Amino acid sequence: QSTFTPADGSVALAVVPGDGIGPEVTAEALKVLEVAAPASVKFEQTRYDLGAERYLATQEVLPDSVLAEIRQHDAILLGAVGGKPNDPNLPPGILERGLLLRLRFELDHYVNLRPSRIYPGAVSPLSTEILGKGDVDFVVVREGTEGPYTGNGGALRTGTPAEVATEVSVNTAYGVERVIRDAFARAQRRPRKKLTLVHKTNVLVNAGSLWWRLFEEVAAEYPDVTTDYCHIDAVMIFLATDPQRFDVIVTDNLFGDIVTDLAAAITGGIGLAASGNVNPDRTAPSMFEPVHGSAPDIAGQLVADPTAAILSGALLLDHLGHPEAAARIETAVIEDLAARTPGEKRSTPAVGDAIAARVAG
Amino acid sequence: QSTFTPADGSVALAVVPGDGIGPEVTAEALKVLEVAAPASVKFEQTRYDLGAERYLATQEVLPDSVLAEIRQHDAILLGAVGGKPNDPNLPPGILERGLLLRLRFELDHYVNLRPSRIYPGAVSPLSTEILGKGDVDFVVVREGTEGPYTGNGGALRTGTPAEVATEVSVNTAYGVERVIRDAFARAQRRPRKKLTLVHKTNVLVNAGSLWWRLFEEVAAEYPDVTTDYCHIDAVMIFLATDPQRFDVIVTDNLFGDIVTDLAAAITGGIGLAASGNVNPDRTAPSMFEPVHGSAPDIAGQLVADPTAAILSGALLLDHLGHPEAAARIETAVIEDLAARTPGEKRSTPAVGDAIAARVAG
Ligand SMILES: CC(C)[C@H](C(=O)O)[C@@H](O)C(=O)O
Ligand SMILES: CC(C)[C@H](C(=O)O)[C@@H](O)C(=O)O
Repeated sequence: QSTFTPADGSVALAVVPGDGIGPEVTAEALKVLEVAAPASVKFEQTRYDLGAERYLATQEVLPDSVLAEIRQHDAILLGAVGGKPNDPNLPPGILERGLLLRLRFELDHYVNLRPSRIYPGAVSPLSTEILGKGDVDFVVVREGTEGPYTGNGGALRTGTPAEVATEVSVNTAYGVERVIRDAFARAQRRPRKKLTLVHKTNVLVNAGSLWWRLFEEVAAEYPDVTTDYCHIDAVMIFLATDPQRFDVIVTDNLFGDIVTDLAAAITGGIGLAASGNVNPDRTAPSMFEPVHGSAPDIAGQLVADPTAAILSGALLLDHLGHPEAAARIETAVIEDLAARTPGEKRSTPAVGDAIAARVAG
Repeated sequence: QSTFTPADGSVALAVVPGDGIGPEVTAEALKVLEVAAPASVKFEQTRYDLGAERYLATQEVLPDSVLAEIRQHDAILLGAVGGKPNDPNLPPGILERGLLLRLRFELDHYVNLRPSRIYPGAVSPLSTEILGKGDVDFVVVREGTEGPYTGNGGALRTGTPAEVATEVSVNTAYGVERVIRDAFARAQRRPRKKLTLVHKTNVLVNAGSLWWRLFEEVAAEYPDVTTDYCHIDAVMIFLATDPQRFDVIVTDNLFGDIVTDLAAAITGGIGLAASGNVNPDRTAPSMFEPVHGSAPDIAGQLVADPTAAILSGALLLDHLGHPEAAARIETAVIEDLAARTPGEKRSTPAVGDAIAARVAG
């Protein structure tokens, strides 16, 4: 049995609360996790202080020794990292590339999983006419370890009028095939069994042909899964006018980033959007985090909605082999959302308490 | 006087109706153009049959001799190009890269201009609560000649399990600065004088730093323009929940493609979205086209909405120095939209006739 699939007993959990509202929402996620986990599961937490604060104090982003320690855990729960916008002491990308993306890449989180459901009671910016067409319930499988996020590229004659800056999207058959396989397997497990590939094959023809070819090849092994293709620009229109058409979406790292934020917006906001950075081969711990950022503007006031972090905890439990416990959290969240009244202002811990109480039942 | 700024008299217009609904909507755009143009302006049209049909019949996409002819015109009106989805005889990207993007790149259309307004009567998928917050009226200045659209990149070991495919986004100070300058000048001419840069500077740090640096540098010359920055993922959320916050957006070729389709969706659909591929230096003719595609599924039935093509004609007139004529078209469209009844089915020519009649007054 591998370290990263503890069936029961002690689960080594690396907790990275991060900056801003990160620690606030993480506390609630942990509260609910403890209540929801089967009695046989005991979380052994190790806290890692990483993020903008640590960087500003020590110039350290993610020391190799810390990464090596985190790697020994069964799973990672992350809050949010990021300092004040435009802080001159925080070079752009330093935390994103050096911490968040480094964890995703080093731990081979090639499936970035982002479920999108409009729960009853959630406030969607879409019209009642669009919402009335039916339930919105899809999941985005975003590739997490290559594409435009590799950090390839560079700049020449920086700072001069002759500057040239490049970004290279690197796509490998190895990397594309494995995420497509994961997405087909997920689609097959869902009632509608439909998988949509999202790309821009008519312009990005090199990467597009690779994605298209492997999508077709793997599709042949899943005759019961309905397949579809949408250009990234057309997806914008469909998410706004017909989000019901999607069941599972598979796409690259950058398109996935964009699609999932729109998905979060239409399904009730970034306060509800959970994500898992999953290593399906279990060669390293997977990491669970809300899609939202550290929101320094509202930090310290205990007004952040911890629901996305709590739902990320449900994804963590599911990944560790406890789907019933995960479902209990989701049900509790659905009940809590349905009980919310417009304009109500509960504190972050009050929302966590309410959901934990529902889970405890 | 340059060829591409005819104040009056004869205007040489290259017309590329294209495929599918392209010819249908182009006919209506021309109808309205003729009525709206000042009496002193006489359009001399040359029709160029380019697109999927021509390619399938002759294997020709855009012969150099045709490009040379088109280049001699004062402006280009394009309908839409593209064949049936997944036609095995149409390699992916062949028309996009070979025709549409080739025209944009060869004619140096570095400002891809896409106005986004929610006109009264237009059907938006957003909720009445979001729409009630105020008027939505912004314009996207999308870079049109570099970025991820350059066609740089390639593939190695194609078709094998060891394939690597790359796409290179190429950004130059030359190309980024000129589009940013255009956007600042446009923002300054608008009442709200606000410009938002859209990028993903926290991940695409090379290109991001270049865009950021030039944005800051040019901003210093426009102290009366308010500036803002949004990551592309955050823009998804804002367009869905607070589109009122935008006035002018400047962004790269790929982000602009994505943002403008979402903008079209929320402002009433792709049936209304007009665009100009503008060469502000007037070293070659600018090209005006609806954002929508050739929609082969509804072609031949005369049911396509020609409004986007008609509004593209207004952008053409504005570019040629006839802002009052352009405004007359926009006013006629606004009146026509307000008079539409839900579910009504007017034919393509009926919509064109109605708008032309209102322009004629
Ligand atoms: C913070 C940033 C690097 C990150 C991403 O782009 O992946 C975030 O937007 C996300 O979606 O998790
Ligand atoms: C057809 C395609 C090449 C084009 C683009 O991506 O620019 C279209 O989507 C557009 O927005 O004009």
